[in-house]
This record gives sequence, structure tokens and C-alpha cells, in this order.
Amino acid sequence: MSEDTKLVAQANENFYRAFESLDVKQMEKVWAKESPIQCGHPGWRILRGWNVVMESWRRIFENTPMIRFLLTDVAIEIRGNMAWVTLYENLNSSVEGQNISATVLTTNIFEKGPDGWRMIHHHGSSVAQQAPQTDPPTVH
Amino acid sequence: MSEDTKLVAQANENFYRAFESLDVKQMEKVWAKESPIQCGHPGWRILRGWNVVMESWRRIFENTPMIRFLLTDVAIEIRGNMAWVTLYENLNSSVEGQNISATVLTTNIFEKGPDGWRMIHHHGSSVAQQAPQTDPPTVH
Repeated sequence: MSEDTKLVAQANENFYRAFESLDVKQMEKVWAKESPIQCGHPGWRILRGWNVVMESWRRIFENTPMIRFLLTDVAIEIRGNMAWVTLYENLNSSVEGQNISATVLTTNIFEKGPDGWRMIHHHGSSVAQQAPQTDPPTVH
Repeated sequence: MSEDTKLVAQANENFYRAFESLDVKQMEKVWAKESPIQCGHPGWRILRGWNVVMESWRRIFENTPMIRFLLTDVAIEIRGNMAWVTLYENLNSSVEGQNISATVLTTNIFEKGPDGWRMIHHHGSSVAQQAPQTDPPTVH
């Protein structure tokens, strides 16, 4: 594993630890301040720009008493100062006293800047929790 | 608009024209042959590698009599030989004689190689067709 691959893996881990912390200050440290950032939470429309992305985290954190992630099938690709990571977020959370679990397919993009690898894009989408589909839907 | 921005916009358009053509040969021309490719169709699990990605297009095309895309909110970012595009696919399709429409939030990643800008990653996820949410879900 190259040094950059290790660093991107760490940056990706840091994102999920910040998410679990439910602390916007931790989340802010993970994202690039120098680049336009974008974030697509599962089922949401795309959010673009620092303020709107961080406001979304604030609102999610306010409404989430607890969340834990198990990451699977993590694949890291790096070209120069850009990296993208795909993975499944297997999450357990608690909403109004009810435990819920979900699997989210995620694309995370990182950029290497003056402060190291920072997130510039996050796109998560819910997928079925079963084994890979053998009879996929017909429509894109 | 820089020359590369125009070329990425064209590569992105080519992807949707290939999709509308329902012809795998057209779709193959859009993707990078030199790089590991990944594809996450809405609701599907991630597909990695040329053969499995192209097989997915073959199966989708076989089951789609017609599909048309209107792209909105297209944002193009370029760093060196990497580019990523986010947009909404506003699609109209026909399944078993029924017209259906859907909105898909998409992240497309392109790489500039010997043959120009080619797709290396596609991640689409369904979103509500209404205006942007004002009361987002509480769970990631």
C-alpha cells in the first residue's frame, strides 16, 4: 500500500469518526476549505458550498442521538492529487428510541492540499441490504 | 469555459447519448479502457471492472425500450487529469408500455487519457422529484 493510499484511507476513516462524533467542529476538519465542496446525503438533493454542507451536518447531528459505521468493500483509487473511495456504510443508528440499520453505497472524493487529503465530495445512496442483486431493476 | 471544461462537458453528454442509444458498443466508447472502472446504478450495489459494468449496461438496455434524459444543475470540476461532474438526470422511460419519469442524482468521474476524457465512475441515486427538501430526513 502506497503512502498516499494509507493517507487517503486515514482521511476516509476520519470522516466516519467525525460523523460518529456528531460534532460539526470535527466534521469541518475533514473537508477541504480551499475547494468547492459538494454533498449528496441519501435521498437528498445535492448540496454545494461550505455553508450549506456544514448546515446539513448540523441538522443531521441534531437529529441523531447515536450512529455507528462498519465500512465494507472499501476501494481506493488515486490519480495525482485526487482520490476517490467507494464503499458500503453499514450503519446502525437510533431514531426516537428505535434502532435502525441501513446500507449506503458511497462515493467519497478527496483532494490533496496544503493540509493533506481533505474531502471535497460525498455522495451516499441507500441500497438493499441483501446479497448482490441477481435480477436487477430494468430502469436506470 | 476552459477547453478541458468543454471536453468534459462533451464526454458527459456522450455518456447520456450512449445511454439513449441503448447500444453497448456506443457505451463502451465512453468509458476508460486503461483504468479500473466502477458503476453504481440507482439502488444497485457497486459494480467494479470492465466486464461486469458492460454486462450491466447490456442487461439494462435489453430491458429498456426507450429512455430520454434532460440534465439539470450540471456542475463540472477539474483537477489535472481528473474531473467529476454532478447533475440531475431527469429521465423519461417506458417499461412494459407504461411511461415513467424519475430524477437521479449522479456523480460521474472522468479521467483524461490517451483517447481524451473517458468515464471511470458513475454513481446514480434516486431523489424526490419535488423542489429541494426543506425538512430533510434525520438519518444519513
